Parts: sequence; C-alpha cells; structure tokens
Amino acid sequence: MNEPLILVSNDDGITSRGIRLLVEAMSEIGEVVVVAPDSPQSGMGHAITIGNTLRLDQNDIFGSSISAFECSGTPADCIKLAKHHVLKNRTPDIVVSGINHGSNSSISVLYSGTMSAAIEAALEGLPAIGFSLCNHNPNASIEHCKPIIKKIVEQVLKTKLPKGIALNVNIPPVSENPIKGIKICRQAIARWEEKFEERFDPNGRRYFWMAGNFENSDKGLDTDESALADNYVAVVPCTYDLTAHHTMAILNEDWKII
Amino acid sequence: MNEPLILVSNDDGITSRGIRLLVEAMSEIGEVVVVAPDSPQSGMGHAITIGNTLRLDQNDIFGSSISAFECSGTPADCIKLAKHHVLKNRTPDIVVSGINHGSNSSISVLYSGTMSAAIEAALEGLPAIGFSLCNHNPNASIEHCKPIIKKIVEQVLKTKLPKGIALNVNIPPVSENPIKGIKICRQAIARWEEKFEERFDPNGRRYFWMAGNFENSDKGLDTDESALADNYVAVVPCTYDLTAHHTMAILNEDWKII
Repeated sequence: MNEPLILVSNDDGITSRGIRLLVEAMSEIGEVVVVAPDSPQSGMGHAITIGNTLRLDQNDIFGSSISAFECSGTPADCIKLAKHHVLKNRTPDIVVSGINHGSNSSISVLYSGTMSAAIEAALEGLPAIGFSLCNHNPNASIEHCKPIIKKIVEQVLKTKLPKGIALNVNIPPVSENPIKGIKICRQAIARWEEKFEERFDPNGRRYFWMAGNFENSDKGLDTDESALADNYVAVVPCTYDLTAHHTMAILNEDWKII
Repeated sequence: MNEPLILVSNDDGITSRGIRLLVEAMSEIGEVVVVAPDSPQSGMGHAITIGNTLRLDQNDIFGSSISAFECSGTPADCIKLAKHHVLKNRTPDIVVSGINHGSNSSISVLYSGTMSAAIEAALEGLPAIGFSLCNHNPNASIEHCKPIIKKIVEQVLKTKLPKGIALNVNIPPVSENPIKGIKICRQAIARWEEKFEERFDPNGRRYFWMAGNFENSDKGLDTDESALADNYVAVVPCTYDLTAHHTMAILNEDWKII
C-alpha cells in the first residue's frame, strides 16, 4: 500500500514530550501531519470553540519533513480544522492523539481532551486512536510506549476499525515487571470522588482547587482498570452514541406521560 | 413525599432566560438550589477545571427563597462543587440543567455543556435531565417549555431512572402546530459539516470562525431528529459508558497482536 497519511493531535499541547514521541513513531510508518493545541488542554472534554475566534499557525518544531500546525483551540477544534482546512481534500488513513501524560482509563475518557480528538475523528468517519501513559509525571519514562503504539497503529491500518469507533489505549508505566500484552476491554464504571480545597486570595476572596481520588468499585475482570492493574495495555473501543439503548424499553413501559 | 430537593444548573450562564424559567418551574415542585456558571459555557462538552482555580459566590438573583451560586467553572465543575461543597450531606432528588437556548439533539449532545452537567450528575448516581429548546435565538418564546418540563420532572421523581442514566430532552420551538407529545428516542447518528471562515485581524494576522451545517443521514424513525421533525418532544436516555460493547468481539477476533 502507499505510504499512509497520519494525522496527529493531542491535548497536552504541541510542545509536550508525548506528542514528540508519537510523531517520531508515526513518521516511521507514514506521512505525518500535526495539528495540535498551542497550550495545554487537559480536562477539556469534548469542548469546541463556538463563541470565539481560532488561530492556526504553521511551525517547524518537528523538522522540515513534517507539516505541523499549532491551534489556539481545543483538541476537537484541531481535528475539525485539520480536516476542513489543513488537509482539505486529503483523507487521513488514521488519526492518532497523545501520548497523554496521565491515564484516560475508565470514566476519565469523558473529561479527556486526548480522547475528544480521537472521538471527533471517529465522528468524521476516520479510524482513530487516543494513547495515554498511566503516569501523570511529565518527566516519566515514555520510550517503552513507542513499539506498543506502532504495533497497534499497524494493526488498525491493516484490519481497520468498525465504523465510528475510536480506541482508547492506556499504557502501563515503566516498572520492574514487563508489560504482559494487549487486552480489548470495556470502560470500568468507576468515578472520581472529588474534594475541593478552599483557599483565600491576597484580597481575602475565597477560591477552590479541585482535587480528588479515583474510586473504582467495578470488580469486572474485563475492564480497562483490571487489565492495567495486571500490567496489560488496555484498549477500549469507544462510540459517540451515548444512547442507553437498553433503557428505552424500560422508559416506554414506565412512563405514563407518553 | 417530602418536598424534593432539586439542583439546577445550565451552560448559558446563571443570568440566562432559560435557567430563570427552569428555576421558576422547579420551585413549583420542590426546594431549589442553583449552582450555575457565571458566564456562558456553550460548547464546553464535558470540560472540567483542573489546572486553574474556581470561584463560587452566592447571590440572590432568584429571590431570597432560592439558594443560588455562580461559579467561574464549567457546567461539570458546577455539579461537582454543588455536591461536594454547597449541598455537602444533602442529596438532591433530581438534577436539572438548562433550559438551553438551542438544540442538543443528535451528536450535539457530545459538545453540550447542558448535558455535561446532567451526565456528571448521573455519574454521581443522581437522576438527571438536560432540557434544551430547539431555537438558538436567545429571545425565542420559551414559556411553552414549562408544563412539558414539569411533567417530565414529576414523572422522573415518581418512577426514577435506571442507574447512571441522564435524559437529554429537546423541545420543539413554538410554531403554528401544537406539540404532539413526548417520545423516547435514540440519538440520531448525524454530524456537523464544518466550514471555517478565514479572516484577517487589523494587524494582518489570520484567524478563523467555525461555522457549519448539521447533516443528518440517519433515516431511522426512532431518532430524536425524527421525533423533533414530527413536532414531538424528544427524550434520549444517555449513558456515560462510551464502550462500543458490540465491537469487542470483532476486535478480539481480528487482532493478531493480542
């Protein structure tokens, strides 16, 4: 096959270590075009910029052989601008986002800018993958992700993905134990138990910092959390159809107002 | 039953007409507490504020009998702050968000701040509903939503919702034709076909405005788009489990790397 066209984005911003390694890995597979935020966008969920202007500027931070653009908007904006402005009539063979510094497993997928780029691409009918390293430290070892990512991208280029699906790939951090393999998982139904720390600014006005602990009560062995705890790479196929189809019959039966 | 405790939020901001009507409707049903953004947050998706501080200030814009707080964060932040700081040990019987000025049907649910508040509440195990009026004009007639909203909230208070489900309720605009009723629907698999308008600022630097058309190729008669086109109120039960469960077996079969 011809050299595949690979669109790369992320949510930590175009200067992060994660996207640098992802670009390096992808440039060994195909032609790379980067459209990524010009500043960190963690926790942006599926936000888009509708009441404000967007900037998009080309740069050469990945060298002269890679087209790279930084965008003032969110990860979802980057994908939209990439498709409709940067690439125009060219269709990427795959869209990859990351490598995120920190886990996007379980419920974190909802808040994840990394995955919103991938899900936006899936909406556009493109095969898409978000990659995250389960270590929040921006200086954490990340090199071990490269062969894993290449393997997964090559698999998706070969067998494609079911239409409208984006993969949420979480990779265990480096440890004494080797990574055991790759598992297809479901999203664990866990949640963040928030705490808000109350402080006062120099003018005596109150403000808060959000903090929290991740609480997983989902004991299923088929979850991403279970796979990661067992030192597997967790791959969750994600959809943008939020309909809880199995509850439609329940509501149709229970509701007297319809 | 005792007077229900109703938490109200939105994404258009605490001063919008939509939330005012929602507060008015809810105060006829129970005790109302409002925690809403201090500025418009449309298109914020499921964004949360993790790298910045949050402000939360009480005000009396809904009169002395209603506790109201404006928050500098996103709709999802508002729900988290409401649960963990404002309400503390009190659990709301229901969480309602809106009334959004503009449709959140079909794929718009992903970008919707209104629905992110409702989905965040569902994550917390609370029955939750997002209400939207399918008219983007902030001055559009909205009074007709009130009896519909009261009817749906009373139904949910009575029969509850399946665990983890948030309802996405879209209400047709006022027209010559009366609203025919309420339908339980699935999310139409449609998308926005974006266009970016290129402009130049007074310094000659380029910027973009995002614009776009909604393209619905989903011909199903059970979709929210179909119900709205037929002048029904569309109710989609939404989940925060993004797993495309039906594709797990396909990947397990296709992938040679696992």
